[in-house]
Amino acid sequence: MNEVKALFFDVFGTVVDWRSSIAREVSAFAAERALDGDWEAFADRWRGLYQPAMEEVRSQGRGWVILDKLHGENLDKAWSEFGLPELNADDREHLVRAWHRLDPWPDVVEGLTRLKTKYIIAPVSNGNIALITNMAKRAGLPWDVVLGAEVAKAYKPMPEAYLRSAAALALEPSECMMVAAHNDDLHAAKAQGLRTVFVPRPLENGPEGKAETEPTGKWDYVSESFVALADAIGA
Amino acid sequence: MNEVKALFFDVFGTVVDWRSSIAREVSAFAAERALDGDWEAFADRWRGLYQPAMEEVRSQGRGWVILDKLHGENLDKAWSEFGLPELNADDREHLVRAWHRLDPWPDVVEGLTRLKTKYIIAPVSNGNIALITNMAKRAGLPWDVVLGAEVAKAYKPMPEAYLRSAAALALEPSECMMVAAHNDDLHAAKAQGLRTVFVPRPLENGPEGKAETEPTGKWDYVSESFVALADAIGA
Repeated sequence: MNEVKALFFDVFGTVVDWRSSIAREVSAFAAERALDGDWEAFADRWRGLYQPAMEEVRSQGRGWVILDKLHGENLDKAWSEFGLPELNADDREHLVRAWHRLDPWPDVVEGLTRLKTKYIIAPVSNGNIALITNMAKRAGLPWDVVLGAEVAKAYKPMPEAYLRSAAALALEPSECMMVAAHNDDLHAAKAQGLRTVFVPRPLENGPEGKAETEPTGKWDYVSESFVALADAIGA
Repeated sequence: MNEVKALFFDVFGTVVDWRSSIAREVSAFAAERALDGDWEAFADRWRGLYQPAMEEVRSQGRGWVILDKLHGENLDKAWSEFGLPELNADDREHLVRAWHRLDPWPDVVEGLTRLKTKYIIAPVSNGNIALITNMAKRAGLPWDVVLGAEVAKAYKPMPEAYLRSAAALALEPSECMMVAAHNDDLHAAKAQGLRTVFVPRPLENGPEGKAETEPTGKWDYVSESFVALADAIGA
């Protein structure tokens, strides 16, 4: 661990509880307009369109676009599928920006604050810079620097997303450790030489939903929270 | 001022005292090797090669390279001009990294900490991400996000350096305010629609050197320190 200089964090699911937050935001928006719906199901569907939309960019059929734009397009699809009345531009923007207002899991601020005393802490997320910055400002996430997809111009799990984030800090991949609740993120990071930490988030998909609770690879650490990770790596 | 959401900061000269810091670093390095020299003059010469080196990139005769690389090339030139013995790779890297270890002016940490309560605060510097991040970590500069040349892939005063920094936050240029000790930086920012603050740093070039002490444009604010700026804009 002496070699590790920076901790890279997946954000959606690992740092923040996107599902409850999106359901809360859409529910509040809907209540003002007397719209009925299952907003957890809506959050799941909106999030479900996330990987296919990024895949269009990753597979290079489509040039680089930021996640806010994909979130907007996916909102249009999900909104229409749920049979909801058309959104005006301001309301659409308000809902797209719901992804800038996600709440962290309860251990996150304390854990990051401790980890920051010993390591560079950086989000390496598929979220764009504005999204990650606004989220951090609202939630008090004390990042040292915002890295990830928009800086790398590549969506995880593409190798460039990890390698360019390390290079931006003038670090070797082995000096960076990826922290994620998703095994596929860690497999991709490890394949590029990064260290890995699995922090399962059993409630990511809600109390009824399935989440990844078991490591599927030989990760350097498995921690139940960011505070437990700080305990484990001496921060 | 209600419209302003983000404060953009020039770094070398405005946030940190590069001259004293570089002279201190090179002097300590030289003392261990019993090398004699005028290290303030050396700092001035090293810094003097900064604009011409960036101009090669700005004029597009040369592709994008980060400032650490230019600092290394400029070190080689200045070191040779001063008749100093050749550097090995580790020593060269140590000296290039002196630019990651610059000290802030005395008002900076208090001022930024206050300004951060009300605005997004971001360096918009020609320094690369690693340099700015390492500097912030060492000096306790509480940036919300690191923007600037490496994110924009353009050196100030190119328009893209300002416009892409605003765009990264999904803000209009008029929602961003550039804070700098150098009038040319502010002229360039204002030309792109940003607001402007002049914070003169009379000691930037040392007690004998000339610095810009007077505004040469109609800036939104002229403040003698970051603390005074916080007083002026209610943070």
